[in-house]
Amino acid sequence: MATYLITGASRGIGLSLVALLASFPSSQVGKVFATARQDNSPKLREIIKQHPGRIQFVKLDVTDNETLKQATAQVERDLHGKGLDILINNAGVMPWTPGGVTSMDDLGEVFNVNVTSVHNITRAFLPLLRKGKTKKIVNISGNYMHLLTPAYKITKAALNMLTMQYALEHGKDGFIFIAVSPGWLKTELGGEAADLPVEVGARATLNIVHNKTEKDNGKFFNIHVEGWEQKEGPNQYNGAELPW
Amino acid sequence: MATYLITGASRGIGLSLVALLASFPSSQVGKVFATARQDNSPKLREIIKQHPGRIQFVKLDVTDNETLKQATAQVERDLHGKGLDILINNAGVMPWTPGGVTSMDDLGEVFNVNVTSVHNITRAFLPLLRKGKTKKIVNISGNYMHLLTPAYKITKAALNMLTMQYALEHGKDGFIFIAVSPGWLKTELGGEAADLPVEVGARATLNIVHNKTEKDNGKFFNIHVEGWEQKEGPNQYNGAELPW
Ligand SMILES: NC(=O)c1ccc[n+]([C@@H]2O[C@H](COP(=O)([O-])OP(=O)(O)OC[C@H]3O[C@@H](n4cnc5c(N)ncnc54)[C@H](OP(=O)(O)O)[C@@H]3O)[C@@H](O)[C@H]2O)c1
Ligand SMILES: NC(=O)c1ccc[n+]([C@@H]2O[C@H](COP(=O)([O-])OP(=O)(O)OC[C@H]3O[C@@H](n4cnc5c(N)ncnc54)[C@H](OP(=O)(O)O)[C@@H]3O)[C@@H](O)[C@H]2O)c1
Repeated sequence: MATYLITGASRGIGLSLVALLASFPSSQVGKVFATARQDNSPKLREIIKQHPGRIQFVKLDVTDNETLKQATAQVERDLHGKGLDILINNAGVMPWTPGGVTSMDDLGEVFNVNVTSVHNITRAFLPLLRKGKTKKIVNISGNYMHLLTPAYKITKAALNMLTMQYALEHGKDGFIFIAVSPGWLKTELGGEAADLPVEVGARATLNIVHNKTEKDNGKFFNIHVEGWEQKEGPNQYNGAELPW
Repeated sequence: MATYLITGASRGIGLSLVALLASFPSSQVGKVFATARQDNSPKLREIIKQHPGRIQFVKLDVTDNETLKQATAQVERDLHGKGLDILINNAGVMPWTPGGVTSMDDLGEVFNVNVTSVHNITRAFLPLLRKGKTKKIVNISGNYMHLLTPAYKITKAALNMLTMQYALEHGKDGFIFIAVSPGWLKTELGGEAADLPVEVGARATLNIVHNKTEKDNGKFFNIHVEGWEQKEGPNQYNGAELPW
């Protein structure tokens, strides 16, 4: 009966992960904290209504340390002395830069959301994770190679190195830090032309979350989707380890 | 007779690169713009005094777009219609985080110096580089793996991806973007315990700057130092391509 916290749960992959976890028996999945900036996602509200007490909304702007402090306190209170088992850092942005890299004006801002926030959230929840049974931290990264999203690629490379730093330092205490490339998915961020429905990517991501163990600490994984193992390039979903 | 601009030339690797370039015959090395935040480095002043007109001071705080604008205008004026051949983005910081990654509080700031600034400088000088003969942009990166410099490692990983983005986009126009790991050198940043005197690393870095060609666009290189090819790990200086 593991407990989870998932950021960016208002839509896309985060919402899909919450919906999937809600469908597990309560013997396997305990409390799931679903965070978002605003409590205004009809789909998340519906899931919460159907699973009262199990799926729980937590207000969190990942770039705002004040809401982070409140969120940590709320989660600690609601865990009643128990630990947090799995943290999924999913919230993230991928702005388009149609003019190419020289016209990129949002690098610092994107870094703040995609990297600094993951760092701040991870260390804020580390004491609760230390009390948890699985001590897993999963950072949703990406190896998507479109030319017109430079800030995304630069910040995800940095996120992978951040994951590695935590893994090197905290692996000895039983923590498992991994990064996952969830595939190119049909979400607001991924767009309609993407390879896979969001549910397929979310399920494959959850398989990684559940199956990886201490020996995988510090690694970066591709999802595995049946039928997509033989494709070429970034659209190959074979479950293999990816280069940092 | 190539022209150069080197950031962070007040001390360390930047200063050493300028001193080396000053020792080349003027048939090979033309104007060298040495930038620093303040004109207060006695060693840089001495070099400039000994090579009047050839080595030139340019005031530049890499994080300040106002001084960048002034620096670009000054360099353009002083090139009298000619192009800039080689830009070496060398300025950078490596703060220590003795408490380990969870105590890292300067990630955004370090990113601003080590990555966003390189981006801003590169695009500001791109028009002058386009007029240049070699169109080379060299970003001083690093693969130094000490546990207590997380912000450095995270931001250098991001810098490598930034280099790659520029390479992918501008390689077709004849630009050569490379990243170089200059070795662990005895500078203020590297400390006294480092492997090599700064002059050795600077000379090896300059060899890379001069020898790489269009086929090397988008690559990350280790320096080559005789006698250090067989060492293990990050202290091996064999001139090979490094993984991103
Ligand atoms: N879709 C893909 O193809 C793909 C591929 C590779 C990696 N990824 C990664 O997967 C993750 C989720 O992507 P997605 O496709 O689900 O994107 P999405 O549909 O745009 O959803 C992004 C989520 O992040 C949240 N978010 C953004 N900025 C936030 C902030 N400052 N504070 C709190 N939450 C914030 C959003 O919440 P709000 O409601 O508060 O805006 C939203 O819930 C991202 O890290 C993305 O980089 C996606
Ligand atoms: N030494 C090593 O072992 C080693 C290894 C790998 C990579 N590197 C990289 O090599 C580069 C140079 O390092 P170093 O060892 O020569 O370091 P250093 O001796 O500390 O010199 C750093 C230089 O960067 C400049 N700088 C710092 N912040 C600046 C800012 N905001 N604006 C303008 N200039 C700024 C400093 O100029 P001010 O006088 O204005 O402070 C100084 O000239 C760095 O990018 C470093 O990461 C060094």
